[in-house]
Amino acid sequence: MIPEKRLRDFTTGVFKAIGCPDADAQLAADVLLAADLRGVDSHGVARLSGYVRLWESGRLNSTPHIRVVHETPTTATVDGDGGLGLVTAPFAMDIAIEKARQYGSGWVAIRNSNHFGIAGYHALKAVEQEMIGYALTNASPLVAPTFSTERLLGTNPICYAFPAGNYPPVVVDMATSAAANGKLEIAERAGKSIPEGWVLDAKGHPTIDATAVKKGGALLPLGSDRDHGSHKGFGLSAIVDILSGVLSGANYGPWVPPFVAYLQPVVNQPGQGIGHFVGAMRVDGFRPAADFKANMDQWIARFKQAKRVDEQQPVIIPGEPEYEAELDRRKNGIPLVEAVQKNLEALASKLGIGQL
Amino acid sequence: MIPEKRLRDFTTGVFKAIGCPDADAQLAADVLLAADLRGVDSHGVARLSGYVRLWESGRLNSTPHIRVVHETPTTATVDGDGGLGLVTAPFAMDIAIEKARQYGSGWVAIRNSNHFGIAGYHALKAVEQEMIGYALTNASPLVAPTFSTERLLGTNPICYAFPAGNYPPVVVDMATSAAANGKLEIAERAGKSIPEGWVLDAKGHPTIDATAVKKGGALLPLGSDRDHGSHKGFGLSAIVDILSGVLSGANYGPWVPPFVAYLQPVVNQPGQGIGHFVGAMRVDGFRPAADFKANMDQWIARFKQAKRVDEQQPVIIPGEPEYEAELDRRKNGIPLVEAVQKNLEALASKLGIGQL
Repeated sequence: MIPEKRLRDFTTGVFKAIGCPDADAQLAADVLLAADLRGVDSHGVARLSGYVRLWESGRLNSTPHIRVVHETPTTATVDGDGGLGLVTAPFAMDIAIEKARQYGSGWVAIRNSNHFGIAGYHALKAVEQEMIGYALTNASPLVAPTFSTERLLGTNPICYAFPAGNYPPVVVDMATSAAANGKLEIAERAGKSIPEGWVLDAKGHPTIDATAVKKGGALLPLGSDRDHGSHKGFGLSAIVDILSGVLSGANYGPWVPPFVAYLQPVVNQPGQGIGHFVGAMRVDGFRPAADFKANMDQWIARFKQAKRVDEQQPVIIPGEPEYEAELDRRKNGIPLVEAVQKNLEALASKLGIGQL
Repeated sequence: MIPEKRLRDFTTGVFKAIGCPDADAQLAADVLLAADLRGVDSHGVARLSGYVRLWESGRLNSTPHIRVVHETPTTATVDGDGGLGLVTAPFAMDIAIEKARQYGSGWVAIRNSNHFGIAGYHALKAVEQEMIGYALTNASPLVAPTFSTERLLGTNPICYAFPAGNYPPVVVDMATSAAANGKLEIAERAGKSIPEGWVLDAKGHPTIDATAVKKGGALLPLGSDRDHGSHKGFGLSAIVDILSGVLSGANYGPWVPPFVAYLQPVVNQPGQGIGHFVGAMRVDGFRPAADFKANMDQWIARFKQAKRVDEQQPVIIPGEPEYEAELDRRKNGIPLVEAVQKNLEALASKLGIGQL
């Protein structure tokens, strides 16, 4: 178990070492730590070396001039200048929150950015202000639309976060694919097969081979096949791609640049970098916040009491496991698997900074 | 084939016969006809007698005083006074569009309403103004959350509509359940079984029995089971329920009143009627509309060209089949199945108006 502060200081040091100003390095570390604290280990420091490799390859600007390029009282477009999404998305969310404070709601599309970490971090910034938060991002293409074998969409997550009263916030933070790529990696390492309905092989056939995507296959949208609603997962992913990519002037569909530095962006891109979309709405723009929160508590309590299929397994309120993980990890520290620890050791050596 | 105008006039006449003012009757008919024209036959005049029965049972106010009860520059809450959602939702969308015209975006939560027809109708009103449209509604509980057997959520649809350039608008309009209830009815009438992953039986076991929901079972969220992401479908449905029900002061979860008049609303409801949520954002609040539309056209063209699993089956752009159905049906008329025709005949006789 690594104490939160030690991991945070180390992560901040890595971002400083690649040239990020102090405030940006602290903010980027805060976003990654939020993932590790909330138990979303795939999106935390496990990705740190990925950001560094992107910087080494010249595709990440560590001293960006992030700016608003278009604006109305409640909408804006932000150009991230090729910097970290970990920094650009909070910048944009602050604008959305300020617009919401003044006008009831605020919506910001972001272009020319890179991976922004967990969507939940950004949406939860609004919840702290008694607002409803919204965060979307597109991502490198891994998912095939219904009836196709071609990777045209990212796992394009959708996140809404809602404040509650006595309960923790309700946070729906979900990829729009049937399964996350990380789950394939876990199965591959364990030498196991995967359930049918997660991926197609390169010929477009369903497969249980955990390495199928690496061999030219594709992830399936939420719903898995047409009979079970994969056109809905495709539709959701399209919404995210259009709001994040097309509306902002970023890339979209198959043109979204890859996060991994060893893959080159495709040529003739229609936009700049990857895109995000964030928003905030004041709860009291609709009804008194106390009334809303009291009803949220009733909603949560009722779903927690739902009749169970298996007596041992209650209904899980979206965001509850992550909230509980955070309480635990803030107190007891963050577990890192050996591969990640070794990865961070190598990173420290390469950058000439102190070990974790 | 019934010519559009004849069906429209008949439908308007039915709404007038239950006491709706002329303008409301025409508007309600327009929403139902949009469903029939767009090929969403389950949500058109097939439901007309359902609205009438709701009125007969005293649960539908045909002369509502629809009003804004809470407001900021870009948010509002509308009380539908127990009237038709077919009338209240367009009223609310007009407010959202006007707010967007002035401030860039507008968002309206609606309480004390009834079934609002197809979500796509409402979202497309924004597209006509070069805006992005958003429409959600909660509905009577039929869907069980992941790990539960209890019907706590409606099929709670999500709709986003985006303008394009040379192509028709992209309209994602989808229930957040794995399958619509109407598909079970079709299978039942045909004496067929249904795919596993659509419903649970009353004990919480997967079943292929098309009558399982009628026997106390429940529909499953999009994703079908935990391995295939049903917690995501549950999360999406929760988003719709919270924005439509909790945020507006309508009912939510198991308290949402049933559309069918033979089922009574549960007692001790926490809110009023059913709830919707609509919104509009100016495209040019983010970037010039011409640039957005050009990129939308490229997005659509690229997805239409996607490599196919089956050479005969191209990728379907969300909203494209409905657009094509509308072109055809405006010209050639609307096909009504015999059961619906007989149903409308009986309705005309009962209300003492001219036959279709």
